[in-house]
Amino acid sequence: MAKTHPAFVELAEYSKKIQNYESILALLHWDQETHMPQGGIAPRSQQVSLLSGHIHDERTGRKFKAHLEKLIHLSTGKHKVKGLTKQQGVCLREWWKKYMKDTKLPTSFVEEITLVTSEATQIWAVAKKENNFKLFAPFLQKILDLNRKKADILGFSEHPYDPLLENHEPCMTTQKVGVIFDGLKKELTALLKKIVKAKQIDDGFLHKKVSEEKQFEIGKMFLSKLPADPSYSRLDLSSHPFSMSIHPHDSRITTRIIPNAFMSNIFSVLHEGGHMMYEMGLPVEFWGTPLAEAVSLSIHESQSRWWETLIGRNLPFWKHFYPLLQKSYSGLKGVPLERFYRAINKVSPSCIRVEADEVTYCLHVILRFEVEKQLVSGKLPVSDLPEFWNEKMRELLGVTPPTDAQGCLQDIHWALGEFGYFPTYALGNIFAAHFFSAFAKQIPDWDKKISKGDLSFIRDWLKKNIHQWGRTYTSEELAKRVTGKPLSEDAYCTYLKKKYSAIYDL
Amino acid sequence: MAKTHPAFVELAEYSKKIQNYESILALLHWDQETHMPQGGIAPRSQQVSLLSGHIHDERTGRKFKAHLEKLIHLSTGKHKVKGLTKQQGVCLREWWKKYMKDTKLPTSFVEEITLVTSEATQIWAVAKKENNFKLFAPFLQKILDLNRKKADILGFSEHPYDPLLENHEPCMTTQKVGVIFDGLKKELTALLKKIVKAKQIDDGFLHKKVSEEKQFEIGKMFLSKLPADPSYSRLDLSSHPFSMSIHPHDSRITTRIIPNAFMSNIFSVLHEGGHMMYEMGLPVEFWGTPLAEAVSLSIHESQSRWWETLIGRNLPFWKHFYPLLQKSYSGLKGVPLERFYRAINKVSPSCIRVEADEVTYCLHVILRFEVEKQLVSGKLPVSDLPEFWNEKMRELLGVTPPTDAQGCLQDIHWALGEFGYFPTYALGNIFAAHFFSAFAKQIPDWDKKISKGDLSFIRDWLKKNIHQWGRTYTSEELAKRVTGKPLSEDAYCTYLKKKYSAIYDL
Repeated sequence: MAKTHPAFVELAEYSKKIQNYESILALLHWDQETHMPQGGIAPRSQQVSLLSGHIHDERTGRKFKAHLEKLIHLSTGKHKVKGLTKQQGVCLREWWKKYMKDTKLPTSFVEEITLVTSEATQIWAVAKKENNFKLFAPFLQKILDLNRKKADILGFSEHPYDPLLENHEPCMTTQKVGVIFDGLKKELTALLKKIVKAKQIDDGFLHKKVSEEKQFEIGKMFLSKLPADPSYSRLDLSSHPFSMSIHPHDSRITTRIIPNAFMSNIFSVLHEGGHMMYEMGLPVEFWGTPLAEAVSLSIHESQSRWWETLIGRNLPFWKHFYPLLQKSYSGLKGVPLERFYRAINKVSPSCIRVEADEVTYCLHVILRFEVEKQLVSGKLPVSDLPEFWNEKMRELLGVTPPTDAQGCLQDIHWALGEFGYFPTYALGNIFAAHFFSAFAKQIPDWDKKISKGDLSFIRDWLKKNIHQWGRTYTSEELAKRVTGKPLSEDAYCTYLKKKYSAIYDL
Repeated sequence: MAKTHPAFVELAEYSKKIQNYESILALLHWDQETHMPQGGIAPRSQQVSLLSGHIHDERTGRKFKAHLEKLIHLSTGKHKVKGLTKQQGVCLREWWKKYMKDTKLPTSFVEEITLVTSEATQIWAVAKKENNFKLFAPFLQKILDLNRKKADILGFSEHPYDPLLENHEPCMTTQKVGVIFDGLKKELTALLKKIVKAKQIDDGFLHKKVSEEKQFEIGKMFLSKLPADPSYSRLDLSSHPFSMSIHPHDSRITTRIIPNAFMSNIFSVLHEGGHMMYEMGLPVEFWGTPLAEAVSLSIHESQSRWWETLIGRNLPFWKHFYPLLQKSYSGLKGVPLERFYRAINKVSPSCIRVEADEVTYCLHVILRFEVEKQLVSGKLPVSDLPEFWNEKMRELLGVTPPTDAQGCLQDIHWALGEFGYFPTYALGNIFAAHFFSAFAKQIPDWDKKISKGDLSFIRDWLKKNIHQWGRTYTSEELAKRVTGKPLSEDAYCTYLKKKYSAIYDL
């Protein structure tokens, strides 16, 4: 660091300080969802609000700006000083982008959206419980108006949905996602049509009751088999599974126990474990700078879906782990591996996104993408949403939600003010399969290795190709760097068609 | 609040903000001792250090001072403005005291002591493990020098130990504590002499192995019987039991499981439960101001010892709870209540403070008080400490520690830089018995009520007489207000003599 510009050193220290506050905030959230006594909710809201505000002040304060200004032109993001290393350039680029984003939205706007979404979240919960869309509609309208205002403030040239999407997935546009999703929709609906006509799979043996203690024990067993240092992680229960990285050496994941669906717990552990291993694989020596930050939500999701689906719902994985699972849970005695494998991959169009299988999952996301675009552009009035939703469900999945609670009221995201978030769920799958195509080419015997229980070579590959780079590359650059090809839905469609043609004898 | 001076309103808001940061810090500590993965320790130190520094900056910053100056003369603490309510006066008095204390020690000094104690704590652990006092001695010397410097900065007129003691127990002096401890020492050593000559109690049935799960379940059962809202608290395991109040509605306690001493877990729950109920009983409407803060460490300890000993080691309590315990743990079948009661009150002089019974506990504390006084005044050189310690142990307890690890190296307090803390452990017992004398007079059938399982009337009495006042009164004022008499060791000595004369047929 001898030759490093002093303003850079100060910025890096500042960035680490802010990241430490972010870690504390992460712990507050983790605790709230896992162990906090019920009475803690009101004081916790105050703590979170205070700390979030403080972080925002630090990020947008004069000190940070002054340091930044010494090194770059704030208007363009171009370097003022020469002689920076490539890594330092990456840091400056990302600090600048974040600073511009954070300072664009006026505090009064941020406070307004916080206030509205805080109330909307509670109303949404009641509306969902009582299946009363009309109760939620005025809040959705307010949130939509605020998101349109946000789009105006952030600025856009083609579609007002662009800045909202870009907020969650830098370097993506409505047009780019549209092209990918159109291709995916065509392939998925065609595949689904074939599957529903084929002979259906009986997975009844996966739906016997297994106690919470037993399931949690199994969850911990699978976590312990992942190629991650056990002293850096822990597993807890929460109402919705999530992962929370406090530091690459302190990563916490949760799972949810559904008594009569014990595989759900295992796939949650693999999914959240994927998120966890991404954070653990970031270069700890650069912790607190963009060099040790995840690229984007989609890339994060690519890592969780990689472990949950490409590895965890695949045959080689279960060649090794099925006998272990059978030992832990006697209800699988006598069920052959092949039957188990087909059962955990059963395709069944349903109304609920979070319960969807691999083939239908992205269709749920595509539906939301189309709804959000039309809501934001104003083509679809809020009052017409339930009907539009149900129509799209029939078109894409061939099912009609019996209630709005199981339809357009099912997700919390809009109540939280999040528009443009949903697409990252599908993009994660697409990135994962795209990366996997290179992985399988470079390590032709990957399946044999996995079927012997070796998982660490997968972690090493991901670390070398994805994790170690932090935010050095954008998600698009990363896709091309790893595979030599720009991102497309091709690899994902090929994977799904091959896998499900075999399972369903298509 | 219509007539409240605007500077007071601002100070109160400021005080609440700081308290919110303190709550976050408390969560960081709780998590570190309960659930944090091992790898989290290094990042956690950074988080704690950052947040502690920020809290110190807020407490001593220009804004706080400016608000304070509008209302009081900083040099004397006297009010500048008239028309403040009594409660507002209490807040100002306490804010001023805290501000003066916080600004007296220069940041460089605080940083130095943090650095030294951080290293000393690790060295102490090694020295204790290897029974090597000489390894720890130079660090103890450094810490002692820093404590002497601290005493000089804080100022004193009689004894350099005064400001260190006052730091932990406002309104106490070396002289005052000396008088009380001298009286206590005389009575306790006399009582102990009689007890060791009496027929000894066999408590072997309390030392059979009970599994961790079973013990934890029993711990939770006892917590649930305490008169506290269960949605405001939780129980976890840690290597040393502690209580951590994040808010009156979010209070967390821990217990420790010793396989062959299952009563230890129950008494830990009652002890930490006492701390917890004090924090829960503070007036929540004033949260974030001194009106909702605990008076002092001694008063806090009086509440924990109240529930652990005066209630929890007493016969009326077990009249109701012994049958419940017998149901939970079959090893007590056939053991009569009277025998159980005598066994849990067995007196047995040992070398370790934290394992001590009611009669010998304060003698361990008095020893430390005498050692600390002489170390701080310079009469006792650090190199002579082990010998002096062992001599005092023989004098007070009639036992000689076989090793320094079980002697002067047993406690972590000095490594943490804490001098003047130990006396509060004994003072807590003295305050508790002092308060109890009034309680028993005002509610003559207290024992009958407890033996029916009623505990809520105790909480109500404590809330009315102690908890609700926050820091309105000093500990001395509180002692006099509650009982009509100034604090002395009399009530405690009377209680111990009566109880143990009966148990040991003296």
